[in-house]
Formats: sequence, structure tokens, C-alpha cells
Amino acid sequence: MAARAAWVCRAWRLPLRAGSPRRGPAAVGGLWGGAAAAPRRPFSNDKVRVELEESTGVAVVKLKSPPVNSLSLELLTEFSISLEKLENDKACRGVILTSAVPKIFSAGLDIMEMHGKSKEHYAEFWKAVQELWLKLYDSSLVTVAAINGSSPAGGCLLALSCDYRIMAENPKYSIGLNETQLGIVAPFWFKDAMVSTIGHRAAERSLQLGLLYPAPDALEIGLVDKLVPEEEMQSVATQVMAQWLAAPDHARQITKSMMRKAAVEHLRKHRDSDIQNFVSFVSRDSIQKSLQMYVEMLKQKKA
Amino acid sequence: MAARAAWVCRAWRLPLRAGSPRRGPAAVGGLWGGAAAAPRRPFSNDKVRVELEESTGVAVVKLKSPPVNSLSLELLTEFSISLEKLENDKACRGVILTSAVPKIFSAGLDIMEMHGKSKEHYAEFWKAVQELWLKLYDSSLVTVAAINGSSPAGGCLLALSCDYRIMAENPKYSIGLNETQLGIVAPFWFKDAMVSTIGHRAAERSLQLGLLYPAPDALEIGLVDKLVPEEEMQSVATQVMAQWLAAPDHARQITKSMMRKAAVEHLRKHRDSDIQNFVSFVSRDSIQKSLQMYVEMLKQKKA
Amino acid sequence: MAARAAWVCRAWRLPLRAGSPRRGPAAVGGLWGGAAAAPRRPFSNDKVRVELEESTGVAVVKLKSPPVNSLSLELLTEFSISLEKLENDKACRGVILTSAVPKIFSAGLDIMEMHGKSKEHYAEFWKAVQELWLKLYDSSLVTVAAINGSSPAGGCLLALSCDYRIMAENPKYSIGLNETQLGIVAPFWFKDAMVSTIGHRAAERSLQLGLLYPAPDALEIGLVDKLVPEEEMQSVATQVMAQWLAAPDHARQITKSMMRKAAVEHLRKHRDSDIQNFVSFVSRDSIQKSLQMYVEMLKQKKA
Repeated sequence: MAARAAWVCRAWRLPLRAGSPRRGPAAVGGLWGGAAAAPRRPFSNDKVRVELEESTGVAVVKLKSPPVNSLSLELLTEFSISLEKLENDKACRGVILTSAVPKIFSAGLDIMEMHGKSKEHYAEFWKAVQELWLKLYDSSLVTVAAINGSSPAGGCLLALSCDYRIMAENPKYSIGLNETQLGIVAPFWFKDAMVSTIGHRAAERSLQLGLLYPAPDALEIGLVDKLVPEEEMQSVATQVMAQWLAAPDHARQITKSMMRKAAVEHLRKHRDSDIQNFVSFVSRDSIQKSLQMYVEMLKQKKA
Repeated sequence: MAARAAWVCRAWRLPLRAGSPRRGPAAVGGLWGGAAAAPRRPFSNDKVRVELEESTGVAVVKLKSPPVNSLSLELLTEFSISLEKLENDKACRGVILTSAVPKIFSAGLDIMEMHGKSKEHYAEFWKAVQELWLKLYDSSLVTVAAINGSSPAGGCLLALSCDYRIMAENPKYSIGLNETQLGIVAPFWFKDAMVSTIGHRAAERSLQLGLLYPAPDALEIGLVDKLVPEEEMQSVATQVMAQWLAAPDHARQITKSMMRKAAVEHLRKHRDSDIQNFVSFVSRDSIQKSLQMYVEMLKQKKA
Repeated sequence: MAARAAWVCRAWRLPLRAGSPRRGPAAVGGLWGGAAAAPRRPFSNDKVRVELEESTGVAVVKLKSPPVNSLSLELLTEFSISLEKLENDKACRGVILTSAVPKIFSAGLDIMEMHGKSKEHYAEFWKAVQELWLKLYDSSLVTVAAINGSSPAGGCLLALSCDYRIMAENPKYSIGLNETQLGIVAPFWFKDAMVSTIGHRAAERSLQLGLLYPAPDALEIGLVDKLVPEEEMQSVATQVMAQWLAAPDHARQITKSMMRKAAVEHLRKHRDSDIQNFVSFVSRDSIQKSLQMYVEMLKQKKA
């Protein structure tokens, strides 16, 4: 498989050859990286780090694209490739998605990819966004989002695509599809995922206003499933994953697919028109100006 | 535009020429009518009063058809024309819908229009009901219902069609689609709006039983978004509207349209058959008798 | 009507001839069987007992197939026939569905019907499951589930198909679509009924994990509508039924049909493929092994 060739296997702590995991007495160590000799297969692209623990079948996928894990074309592509490899790896049954960057899960789609580029670039970018979503939302693996920081727009979409969402119990962290506030529009499949999660009424208000929910409000509205103290996120994510992995894989996978089929097919049937819509929308002068203003506001915030 | 010609511009308090609003130091006054020299364009039909405040872009639309704001053919037509004018008026960005009649928002469709008339009349009436709903539910303006009294059946539909619903905190006021109690059936698009707002299960029970919810119950079930003391309704409605107007218009409008498209198209595709259904249903002897009994019950209540 | 001929009229307590109910001073007695001379028409198959109280139009349908009211082909067939007769009986307006077996409402589909039998048998069995569901979910009668014991899988489906669910306030009783835990998959129409009742998000988690909810959790998630002390179930079920029967029948029936039409048509259109799916799924060696293990686990539990 072509994608397999792109699998970048870099050393991480203890170099381990894929397929020949070392098993030692310390195999019980934490999933997040503190353990000495856990039987893991770590892989790493530039912007996505994958640690697959063979004893449990659980991979931790960490976004590591500082400062805010913006979903650039590069990150999207690496993430898609990583997911595809895990999907095809019989040793893997579940994925915990989290961030290696403090205080931010993901800031969402990289505005620089939608600003001042060619139409071809916009089309390629949007196709990569669709591709990642289809892979994540339609994954046969158990997917748990460990939202350890703020998660607006596309960051929220990543979380919405998982099977379960835990979020750090920090009211400074917020989550939501706030596209409207930027003068842009969440596409129909972002909307479908939001409606499936919090219902039509809450989604309508939320999307029209572009609301960001502080963690406690996100829990109340059902946008996340559980709040936990930040220092307990890894242990709770591991427990949640164990609960989900206790269900027989095959039956769980067919059930998941049945639940998500309509939304997945909705996008698959309209991928091209969705790309065209995005390109023509984002190419408008008014939208480019709007994004320009936003970019400058971000720059001022930093300064 | 033809409809424009029908725009009845009557003097209200201080005559103001449209397009040349007077701006003065007292422009901060209340939206509902207490202010001295606010830059407003007041218009009024017989049954609908419209006050557009140019400084904010917010129009207050008040139903004023005592005793109970029944949705007669005349009121429906005036309301539709008013909405169309506001939709086409660049000075208008939002509508607050409320009642000028104490204790009642709207009692719903005027039963006298469905009773003892010709089939042609029933068809004309029903078309007007559809037309108003399509204009209100699919409006690109921000629409806030300030429900300052009871709101059964068609009155509830008006409220359901807005973007946000505040209701007077008075348990004597109730709201709901209670058609079943009258022996008639809420049409599929009333149902669609109800399901979108409170979910399938609550809507099923609510519609089968024809339930009317006192204000506190309506809040709990999600049929309204907020309860406020009656004397604070105007200020809260104004605050809510300001929050909604803070979102960029264009992105908000596209988002709203995306959320409501399915329900709007559902009716647009079946308008004729929906009219035929209504006419044949309401023409039945049994339904006419049922409505007759209801009309007489109402008369006895008055006496 | 052919089905009519199958109506088995057995004596129960006081023999009453169908069509000539005795009306006496004690007619107020409890629906569940304590009354002395209530004007009832009791009927009974081997596994389903029907008591129709003519004064109220309410039939109590009790599943009586110990030890756990498994939905065998025989029970499904008798239940369908009973429902069809009640549907066609003008004296009947509502059905209270409950169990005559202590601590269990229904354990769901009889695994023995899916295990070690011919493909023809599996097909016949599945058709009977579909048939019962279509009759119950699409019934024009008011249907109230009085869930007086645990109700997993197919037992939960029966409850979901009623208009209202009351459950005994006993945390030892649980309810849910737990098929996944058995290594099998709830079909799309079980899923549709679950989504309509508790929403997409809760249904997705619930079905993927095969969750069983103790009564208090079932209330919280909206899987049942009301908890009552077990000794009050009959009186509360009777009160609830009276509330539902207060709505005009004709309008309520059309409304119910409108609410459930999409789900009913979804199955009607795909009945054959749904049967084929079930037969090919359940015929797999892996599924047969999985069911075999479950059967043996049940045997060990008993021993």
C-alpha cells in the first residue's frame, strides 16, 4: 500500500521496531509517555505523534503543531495518513486524540490556507479537510477525544467526530463551531455532526451565533460527555477507552457505521460541490477582507 | 416592487419621513414606544403595527387584533406584507415579534375562517397560513419572539418560527400545539418545527395529547428559551436581539438558511397537496361539528 | 376475518361471553385483576393474556411466558394476533402492555430461535419480529408500557414502541438495547426507534456500548417517561391511559401516524433486505459461536 510507504518511523525514547515490540516488566506504565519500557510502537510525523500500545491496542495520537495546532494542509495530510495506518493495523483497536500543545486542543482550520492563495490551493486544502473528517468520523476504531485545551471551529469538529469526548475542567478552555463569528460558514457536514450531538435547536442557535462554550457549559449542552481535572485526563481517557473496548469489536463497528452512515454518505455524495462551494465562497473579496481583518486581529493579540 | 406600494405609512407619535431619521439626544429610549424622539419609521396596518428603529435596525412587529390576535386571513395577509417589506428594507436587520393585546400573544388560526365557509375560502386561507410561515421561518432577518401572553396552536407556530423565544414569567400563560384537543391535526410543517425545537419524543407526546405548557414547563421542555418578568420583556428582547445582531449578517443568514432548508423545502414541495389536505379535512361534517362545538364553548366561556 | 377465528376465548376468573359484558356495581375495580365483577372480556393464548375492559375501552395485554418472557416465534405470533384483534375491535381504544412474570418485562428475542436452526427458520422468525413491531409501533390505539421488570434488547423495543413508558422504581430493573454486548447488532429500525426516543447522541453511545440503564438512569436519559413504586404501577398506568384517551381519537391517531410514518415506511420498504441481512448475519459461524457462548453463560448463571 502506497500510504504504508509514507509511514515515518522515528525513534522515540526507546527505539522499537514495528512488529517486534519489546515487552518488559514495566509494561503497565502510563499511556501518555511517562513509562520506561512500555511495549509501544511510537511513530511521528512532523505535526502528529502516534504512540501505539500493543498490550492494549490503544494508540494515542497527539497534535504537535505549535503554537495552536492549526489544521494546516500538512497537519491534515499527516493526520489522515496516521489514521489510515492505524485503521489497517490489526494491533490497533482504539485511538485517543489529544494535544501536545499546552492550553489548546486545536484552533481549527488554518486561516493562512484560506487567505491569499490560489483557487487550486483552496480546493486541495478543502479536499484534505473532507478526507480527514471522513477517516475520523467513519473510523471503525474507538475514538476518544481528550480535549486538553480550547477547541474552536475545526478543532471542535475533530472532537465531534470521536465516539466520546472528555474535556479538561477548566472554564478558560472553550469549544464550539464559531465560524459565523469569523464571517464564514460551517459547511453542512460540520452542521450534521453538531445536530447529531446536541440536537437541532441547540445547534441552530449555536451555529447562527458562532458560540464558544466554556467547558462547564459544553458539558451542560452535551457538546462534551465528561469534565475531568486536567491532571487526570490521561487516566480517565484510558478508563473510558477500556469501557468502549469491552464491547465486541465487530458488533460495535457495524453499529457505529449504521449510526453515522447518513452523515458520511451526505458528504460523500456532495464532495465535489462542497469543494466548489468552499472555493467560490472563500475566494470572494468580502470573505478575503474578513479573514484579513481576523488575521490582523490575531497578530495584534500576540503583540 | 408591487408590495412596496402597499406600504402604509401612518404617523405615529412624531411623524418621521422614511430615509431621514431624526437623531437626537433622546435616541436611546425604549424600543416599545416610550421614547420621545427616537429615530423610528412607524407603519401600521389595521392588525399589525411595525416600528422600525433605524439606529439599531430593529423592527418591533406588534399584533393588534383584539380580543385574542386570532390569525384571520386579513391579519395573515397584513403580517406577510409587513415581513416582506422589512425583508427588503436595507435599514432592517431584525424583528421582535410581540403582541399589543394584554395576556395573549396569539390564539392561533382564526376558527371562523375554517368554519361554515366555502372550499375556495379554506384554500385561500390555508395558502395565507403557509405564506406567512414561509416568510417568517425562512426570514434572513433575526427574529425574536417576545411572548407576552398565551400562545396556543398557530400562535405557538409563530413563536417556533423565530430564532429565539422569550416568554413572560407567568404560569397563567401557556404555549403549545394543542390542535388535537380541538379534534384537528397540526400539519406536517407545524410538526417539523416542533420536532426541530424540542426533539422527536417530546414533540410526539406533545402533539398527540395537544398539550399546552405553562411558561415554566415550556422553558423546561425547551419550547421557549428564556423566561423574564413581564415588565422586563422589552429590555431583555432588546438585549437578546443585540447579541444576535453582533454576529456578521451574511454568515448568520447562510447558516440559518442551511439549518432550516429541509423544513422549508418540505413544505414548498408539498404546498398544493397540503392545501388540498386541509380543505378536504376541514370540510368534513365531523370536523365542522367539532369546530362548531368549540366555537360554542368559547362563546359560553365569554358569557 | 381469518385472524378473528383464531381468537381464543378462555375463561378467566368469571367467565364472560364476548359481546355481552356484565356490568355491575363493582365495575370500578382495578384493571390488573383484583376486581370482582368488572365488565371485562378476557382472552388468552398460551403466552399472551388479554383483558379488555369494555367500560373504559382499555385492554391489558400481559406477557406470560416464564421464566423471562422471551420473544419466541410462538409468543410473537400470538402477540401479533392479539394486537390485530384489538385494533379491529371497536370496543378497544387503548392497550396497557405489561408482564405477568415477576421481575422481568421481557428478556427480548429468544436466542434459541437464532441458534442452531435452519435459514428458513431464521427468516420466518425475523419476519414475525418485524410484523409485531409494525403492528405495535404503528397501532392506532393508545399504547402504554407498564415495565414491571427488566427489559433488555427486544424487550426494550416493545417498550420503545408504545406511546408512553412507566417503569417500576427499582434500580435492579434495567432497560436498553444491549445487542452489541451479545456480539450482535440492533437492526436499523430498533435504532430508529431509539434515536426518536432519546436523540441521536445518546442512542449512538447506548447502542455502540450495548448499555443497560437501571430504572433511575433510564428516566434521566428519557428512555422511560415516569418511575413509580411497583405496587402503584396499575393505578398510574390507568391514570396515564385516561389522560391519553381524553384526546379525541381521530385527531390523535392521524397525529401519531404522522409522527411515526417515516420509521414505519423505512422498515416497510426494506423488509426483505432486512430479513436477508438478519439471516446471513445470524448464520455466520462467528455469530453462532458467540450466541452459543451466551447461551452457555446463561445456563451457568442458572446453575
